Amino acid sequence: MSFETATAINSEQHPYTAEIAEGWDVVGNANGGYLLAIGARAMATAAARPYPISVTAHYLSPGRPGPVTIDPQIVKAGRRLTTVRGTLASTEKPLIELLGSFADLEGFEGPARVDASPPDMPPPDECPRTVPDLELGFPPAMMGRVDLRLHPDDANFLSGKPSGDPLIRGWLRFPDDEPMDPFGLLLATDCFPPTIFNANLPVAWTPTVELTAHIRAIPEPGWLRCRFSTRFISGGMMEEDGEVWDSSGRLVAQSRQLALTPKA
Amino acid sequence: MSFETATAINSEQHPYTAEIAEGWDVVGNANGGYLLAIGARAMATAAARPYPISVTAHYLSPGRPGPVTIDPQIVKAGRRLTTVRGTLASTEKPLIELLGSFADLEGFEGPARVDASPPDMPPPDECPRTVPDLELGFPPAMMGRVDLRLHPDDANFLSGKPSGDPLIRGWLRFPDDEPMDPFGLLLATDCFPPTIFNANLPVAWTPTVELTAHIRAIPEPGWLRCRFSTRFISGGMMEEDGEVWDSSGRLVAQSRQLALTPKA
Repeated sequence: MSFETATAINSEQHPYTAEIAEGWDVVGNANGGYLLAIGARAMATAAARPYPISVTAHYLSPGRPGPVTIDPQIVKAGRRLTTVRGTLASTEKPLIELLGSFADLEGFEGPARVDASPPDMPPPDECPRTVPDLELGFPPAMMGRVDLRLHPDDANFLSGKPSGDPLIRGWLRFPDDEPMDPFGLLLATDCFPPTIFNANLPVAWTPTVELTAHIRAIPEPGWLRCRFSTRFISGGMMEEDGEVWDSSGRLVAQSRQLALTPKA
Repeated sequence: MSFETATAINSEQHPYTAEIAEGWDVVGNANGGYLLAIGARAMATAAARPYPISVTAHYLSPGRPGPVTIDPQIVKAGRRLTTVRGTLASTEKPLIELLGSFADLEGFEGPARVDASPPDMPPPDECPRTVPDLELGFPPAMMGRVDLRLHPDDANFLSGKPSGDPLIRGWLRFPDDEPMDPFGLLLATDCFPPTIFNANLPVAWTPTVELTAHIRAIPEPGWLRCRFSTRFISGGMMEEDGEVWDSSGRLVAQSRQLALTPKA
């Protein structure tokens, strides 16, 4: 099943309906980027504007495969931007609360100055693909839905040898040449292993409280290069900053999430 | 009038009411951090939890002095976090749409690792205070409500000589020894001159689409040190990343905003 099908929205009635598909989970719970993609696709549909230039999700409860609803509410439809809020809910309870502004990026232009570069990485063929171990549950099932290849220097946590730096870099694309749409970029901001896996700290897991992603440009076809890093692990919380670069070397998405760091 | 008074909420009825006070404006429009502080104070009141650990605002229309309403809606009241959404509106139209999660930070702890330091700055007495020029409108009126002192290396845009780097560092406190509360930290993330003023690019102004702030710790009394920087000015948009450090050298808030960069 393609990503597009797995995030499809039925917008013929309010609230809209969708389905959390099988296989997008981490130990049974749907990946946060995948839920965000479903929610944002519904909001973009309601806004009739294709690009979430900024979208925020607060994570309330884990999602399981099955039907969901989402009720996008237009907050303001402006000349260039439409702001929308909404709740993605299972039959039992709300899963994520969303707020975003949507635009048609075709009309955007302005002066340019970029003080950063895509992560320097060996070619995809020299980066091992992360594949799920369904028996162990790790790497998680959802790794079967994407073609994700970690930078070899950041991948040794998989064999119990974290690098010591809270940094994760890698290549990403969809299998079977499925094109990357704006909602795939949202997935990209939250489908990599968490930076904490390389930090060598006694943290059990890092549940996301909130994630904000900015779509900054329409991606060229081909592999995405992604970089996730953390500078502040303190007071029971951490941020994780993401950059997503397209095959032309342009930043196409930027993200930050706030996560809790409960002790192991 | 103190910041606390200028952001006070009347929560005796729904929707809550508040007042955009005089003097918090930039050429007539209320500062975005000030509006965020009013909105977040209302949401924290509704949540009965004092700290916005993550709050997002989408800016819809400029605010002018006068009465406003805000209608906080509890999305989920959990064990540690309460998630709230709300609209801050004037008598005529919505000004900002908000979504945040609130907590009592006293209960937060976890392992620590910090890969950053507060900005290196001369003492406050050696950094000139930015004072409003009410006739010219620049520096803006709101500079009279805070005690803000720019790093001398970042302040030459005031005399027409931008540094060329989209970087702004400075000290911040309230006048008259008013203590810094969580909502003052939100103000701190959006009351400095925009980084674009030092970038030497033909950009007229940088209207904020969205700002997300994380409150990471309870500040110690004294001066705050703040740092704002931008890495990606491209495709008609830019991000501005903020860090707010307290007098003990601890990060107390982190922020990112997405702004448009219309040509001059």
